[in-house]
Amino acid sequence: MKTIVIALGGNALIKRGQKGTADEQFRNLQVPIKQIARMSTEYNIIITHGNGPQVGNLLIQQETCESDKIAEMPLEVLVALTQGQIGFMIESTLDNELMKLENEKLPPEERKLFLTVLTYVKVSQSDPAFKNPTKPIGPAYDEPKDGYVQTAKGWRRVVPSPKPLKIYQYREIKKLLEMNFIVIACGGGGIPVVKEKVFDIDRDLQLGERLTGVEAVIDKDLASAKLGEQIDADILLIATDEEKVAINYKQPNQRFLDKIPIAKAKEYMKQGHFPAGSMGPKVQAAINFLEAGGERVIITSIEKIEDALNGKAGTEFYLN
Amino acid sequence: MKTIVIALGGNALIKRGQKGTADEQFRNLQVPIKQIARMSTEYNIIITHGNGPQVGNLLIQQETCESDKIAEMPLEVLVALTQGQIGFMIESTLDNELMKLENEKLPPEERKLFLTVLTYVKVSQSDPAFKNPTKPIGPAYDEPKDGYVQTAKGWRRVVPSPKPLKIYQYREIKKLLEMNFIVIACGGGGIPVVKEKVFDIDRDLQLGERLTGVEAVIDKDLASAKLGEQIDADILLIATDEEKVAINYKQPNQRFLDKIPIAKAKEYMKQGHFPAGSMGPKVQAAINFLEAGGERVIITSIEKIEDALNGKAGTEFYLN
Repeated sequence: MKTIVIALGGNALIKRGQKGTADEQFRNLQVPIKQIARMSTEYNIIITHGNGPQVGNLLIQQETCESDKIAEMPLEVLVALTQGQIGFMIESTLDNELMKLENEKLPPEERKLFLTVLTYVKVSQSDPAFKNPTKPIGPAYDEPKDGYVQTAKGWRRVVPSPKPLKIYQYREIKKLLEMNFIVIACGGGGIPVVKEKVFDIDRDLQLGERLTGVEAVIDKDLASAKLGEQIDADILLIATDEEKVAINYKQPNQRFLDKIPIAKAKEYMKQGHFPAGSMGPKVQAAINFLEAGGERVIITSIEKIEDALNGKAGTEFYLN
Repeated sequence: MKTIVIALGGNALIKRGQKGTADEQFRNLQVPIKQIARMSTEYNIIITHGNGPQVGNLLIQQETCESDKIAEMPLEVLVALTQGQIGFMIESTLDNELMKLENEKLPPEERKLFLTVLTYVKVSQSDPAFKNPTKPIGPAYDEPKDGYVQTAKGWRRVVPSPKPLKIYQYREIKKLLEMNFIVIACGGGGIPVVKEKVFDIDRDLQLGERLTGVEAVIDKDLASAKLGEQIDADILLIATDEEKVAINYKQPNQRFLDKIPIAKAKEYMKQGHFPAGSMGPKVQAAINFLEAGGERVIITSIEKIEDALNGKAGTEFYLN
């Protein structure tokens, strides 16, 4: 059975223009999850997902709430909160969609169990991103503040977006897949941690090692590609707004791509066809996954996951 | 290897008088987790935990934050958020404590993996608790509101606290234990759900079943006892403020109990020695677990988990 990592974009949970009520998020999730439930008899499945609006809301709430008696949580703990929230939303949608299938045609013994894995991702403190934070998060203010940058919405805090080096839970995830679980992991790109060595200076003795969360945000598509590499997944499918990747996006000479070798993708990337804020990290994730030995990468829309997997939609990347 | 469910009380994370910063919570957790890490070579371990202050803070933040653009999440989704938060805090503390042990004397091959299981718990819509909500949650207001009751802190919302009937993830948890994982589960008593049947009225046809979250709070000790029963755990250890259970608590004739048969415990319960807001649900959980076939139940303090397990602290309950 082939193993597929499906990376769900933010629009799987909240569509443009929506406020993002729990009802809306549960309803939106039915579109990808219905397809994933059907696919679950033929594939080992890992679902990864973004958390932009959800973690943003928590930041706004804790910064603007009336009470000064409540301790604000650091960003890495807020990511953990959203992994719980979205993990639960995906799980219960999956539960309902599998139940429907079971009543239709899926015998209970073929029905998969599923689990959300709270995921930490190792980053390096010497990653250049820490010297050049680029990712705006949280509330927008009218006035400048220290460490804030001006964005279209107002002054916002920016945090680093370092490269994912290792998904800590890859062994756990691998074991769960072997036991036929659907796994939800790498929520919001994962909780960024660094491994620190703890020394007793007086005795010049290493006391141990320690994982510590850091104030940063990891790109969920790059984290998904890294996880796919670590667990030897066959396919990476990135589900987003657009059905296909385009060059000259939203210009008169826009052209959608059906199949593309990664050498060509790198060329287009250099030419600036895939900006950092949109297709850039997705195409980079595609390149990383294939160069690390992955078999297929497809970028497509939330609605076309199954079609794209069957070669009827999306942009497919290949090694040569 | 015996299987033990360890239910951590709120003070494992936030002590009285603390604001509950992330640093405080991580530091407090070291006390029970250090003991649990040492125990992990001799027991299969499930850790359950409360979430009172954490879910309370989320309620206050979302009700009092400045923005009206943010959708408020229902209580069951907030419970999922806290399962992510506290699960992460317990896991990373466990990771650090196991790393220390590994450097001291725990060979890597004996080191357990661990996972947090987002846990839903089945409750019945006909549970009498839904007609008589008793659990105050969220912010306290000066003025009365519909559905609010007066408490020492002010007017607060009250929600039902129905009985846990079934922990949905018990099969997943059992499999993880068999694979030598430490499992963190039933956070905050679990996410309360009911199973609804969906009918097509026109065709008089059952379309399927659906899990739906409900606005309620489940007692974490009762949920822990139920989980222990479902996975055939041997021991239930409830870790709280006091080292032992007392009768005539905080009165001149207060007497701490070392060992107590459940018949006697029921008698004391009837006499009002164990109030609903303190030892009541813990003693009830002890009774439930032993009557369902469990071997040992111990109630003790966070500091004395290991001692109590070795018969040197705590109050031990037995069947006859």
